[in-house]
Amino acid sequence: MAIITLTTDFGEKDHFAGAIKGAIYTEMPEIRIVDISHSISPFNISEAAYVIQNAYRSFPKGTIHLIGIDSELNPENKHIAIKLDDHYFICANNGIVSMICSEIVPEKIVEINIHDKIQSSFPVLDVFVKVACHIARGGTLEVIGKTITEVKPIKNIIPYVNDEKSQIIGSVIYIDNYGNVVTNIKKSFFETIQKGRPFEISARNYKFKTIYKRYSDFVNFEIPEEKRHDEGRGLVVFNSGNFLEIAVYKSNSATIGSASTLMGLNLMDTVSVNFLKE
Amino acid sequence: MAIITLTTDFGEKDHFAGAIKGAIYTEMPEIRIVDISHSISPFNISEAAYVIQNAYRSFPKGTIHLIGIDSELNPENKHIAIKLDDHYFICANNGIVSMICSEIVPEKIVEINIHDKIQSSFPVLDVFVKVACHIARGGTLEVIGKTITEVKPIKNIIPYVNDEKSQIIGSVIYIDNYGNVVTNIKKSFFETIQKGRPFEISARNYKFKTIYKRYSDFVNFEIPEEKRHDEGRGLVVFNSGNFLEIAVYKSNSATIGSASTLMGLNLMDTVSVNFLKE
Amino acid sequence: MAIITLTTDFGEKDHFAGAIKGAIYTEMPEIRIVDISHSISPFNISEAAYVIQNAYRSFPKGTIHLIGIDSELNPENKHIAIKLDDHYFICANNGIVSMICSEIVPEKIVEINIHDKIQSSFPVLDVFVKVACHIARGGTLEVIGKTITEVKPIKNIIPYVNDEKSQIIGSVIYIDNYGNVVTNIKKSFFETIQKGRPFEISARNYKFKTIYKRYSDFVNFEIPEEKRHDEGRGLVVFNSGNFLEIAVYKSNSATIGSASTLMGLNLMDTVSVNFLKE
Repeated sequence: MAIITLTTDFGEKDHFAGAIKGAIYTEMPEIRIVDISHSISPFNISEAAYVIQNAYRSFPKGTIHLIGIDSELNPENKHIAIKLDDHYFICANNGIVSMICSEIVPEKIVEINIHDKIQSSFPVLDVFVKVACHIARGGTLEVIGKTITEVKPIKNIIPYVNDEKSQIIGSVIYIDNYGNVVTNIKKSFFETIQKGRPFEISARNYKFKTIYKRYSDFVNFEIPEEKRHDEGRGLVVFNSGNFLEIAVYKSNSATIGSASTLMGLNLMDTVSVNFLKE
Repeated sequence: MAIITLTTDFGEKDHFAGAIKGAIYTEMPEIRIVDISHSISPFNISEAAYVIQNAYRSFPKGTIHLIGIDSELNPENKHIAIKLDDHYFICANNGIVSMICSEIVPEKIVEINIHDKIQSSFPVLDVFVKVACHIARGGTLEVIGKTITEVKPIKNIIPYVNDEKSQIIGSVIYIDNYGNVVTNIKKSFFETIQKGRPFEISARNYKFKTIYKRYSDFVNFEIPEEKRHDEGRGLVVFNSGNFLEIAVYKSNSATIGSASTLMGLNLMDTVSVNFLKE
Repeated sequence: MAIITLTTDFGEKDHFAGAIKGAIYTEMPEIRIVDISHSISPFNISEAAYVIQNAYRSFPKGTIHLIGIDSELNPENKHIAIKLDDHYFICANNGIVSMICSEIVPEKIVEINIHDKIQSSFPVLDVFVKVACHIARGGTLEVIGKTITEVKPIKNIIPYVNDEKSQIIGSVIYIDNYGNVVTNIKKSFFETIQKGRPFEISARNYKFKTIYKRYSDFVNFEIPEEKRHDEGRGLVVFNSGNFLEIAVYKSNSATIGSASTLMGLNLMDTVSVNFLKE
């Protein structure tokens, strides 16, 4: 039996996510539903794109990912279903899956056309649930939509590289629960441009010359614990999703501070990498 | 196998919701538990009433809804179980189900009397779980309580209408995750008073003369996207639960603002509708 | 089929908890996963210890509790798996389970040694999930680690008692969703020192001479409701986990206030009990 995941901006309080689950279980009592996130910032396509890209890969092949952000049907916002990497995604064609599709070519994209004449203001309940259950029962995408070849892109998702390939200019695309600042610079992209050269990363007036594999690699455990002062200090890692991330060791935005609060870094801010002559 | 849903003010951090689930699975390993919300504001009966009313209908018949808000047993706060619309509700008799009961007559209401002598401060764990599992196993309400005929009402849940039927005075009963401001004026109630007349809705010094079916209906898609300025503008819809709602297009309380933040509308504030001569 | 519970500081927004669930279901499609909390404050060991101690007991014997707080593997932070009270706990050896282990002697503790050479920055996904599934399939702890005899303690978890046994000095270890202030003084500990004597509890300049069994016991229901002024007043209870707790009747930190906001009590603050001569 398939799994249906939910990624939405419904929040933790409202009835929306509960209603979706009720509707799915009414159609398919035996299915498994997994919440990925309901706390995407309202209408924030980039955050949703980042979260779903990092979560989906851990699920079994055949999983159906329902993404409910900015999904009201209108002439500029169609509903789509995608098969990619043996996973299914159901969402509005508003850029949410463009980050995934930029890495893996979709096997199939359809624009959903099963809508009734009168539309509601809650299309995730009225349309996406039907589509998800159709797929879960083994139905094909062709039955519920007409094939299209491209999804709408998100702007500024790819970092800029100058002609001399001496600089990457990236931007902050996500701030996580620890206040860590995630950029759009992926490890593979970085290494392609770097070609082994030393580098300096700049974010506001903070500079970093090392990228760690793990947060703890920043700590010198040969120094006795009471003489170290690592908590609250900044570092750079490639995070578990392979994105370049500016972090603070054992950060907590509410207490000792985080990369976001201590360095004043916010969504859309610039982070640049300058490659140095060897 | 039945579904048990949870609607509480336990919050997302504390152990309470986890403990409830553990206790249910200990009694019934095969049952399905669905969170509707654990983020109802502490002791806020009206919010809980709004959320459960909008969520329950999407669940299959036979679902058992456990509502844990202000549920400590005392001489003024008894525990009840209700059968209504082929759903079951277990809660304190504090008004939470009065919104549902005002629309659909309950088939059966019992005041629960299975309590042990020594009461705990966590009755949802000690009492509601037992009752829910009893019902899930096919047990009847008569076995766990004595029949009563009415539930305690919530005050101010019905809007006021003047004698000339030229004005409805409603109030704000819920503010959702998007900062949308939900009133107690339901579509059917509105239309009964309206009888096709034009109208003007007033909330503070904001006025609206149109109620849309969907948020997007507010947008004129014939105007090119770059010339439109719809984001952040106010509108009125009947929401997916058929409540009159003051919204802001693509709102986000933390960024562009929302109906609540931009118009300064809060819980219990007045929203009025004046009907005009044709 | 076993249950795996999750207690983490991943928050409600990020993809981490969703990814964990996907990975577990990929290995074991039929298992049941229950969220206890993902909203532990980042890196807050004491909060996690309090939450897991209060939640685990409600789950069936054999449940596997995965605790993801401050779990990056490093020379000072090893991974452990524990069998205790017929439950399993998988976590870093950072003090999280020391509160539970101080009450019940573990049957078995192992330091996990199944790690691959290259470590990721997301050990809960890469290591804890594998261990949990191993246990869920009936595997023994010996296979995945070497036996150790003690877990790392948390500091200040036990209240101080003076030599004359006339005073307990405790501290605030948790503030719950209602703003209730939970101390490290357990009922059994209190009663052992008290030996029936009258007492006075002090928290800042607030004094209490009664400990209630339930919040409602504070109310005199013989006085008519409209003449009582109980909401917003302070009281002391032994909470459902048997910890001494300073509460406010029907508190809400955002509206009428709570023990934490009204009395200015925060984590680590002192709460003392003075026993009086009879």
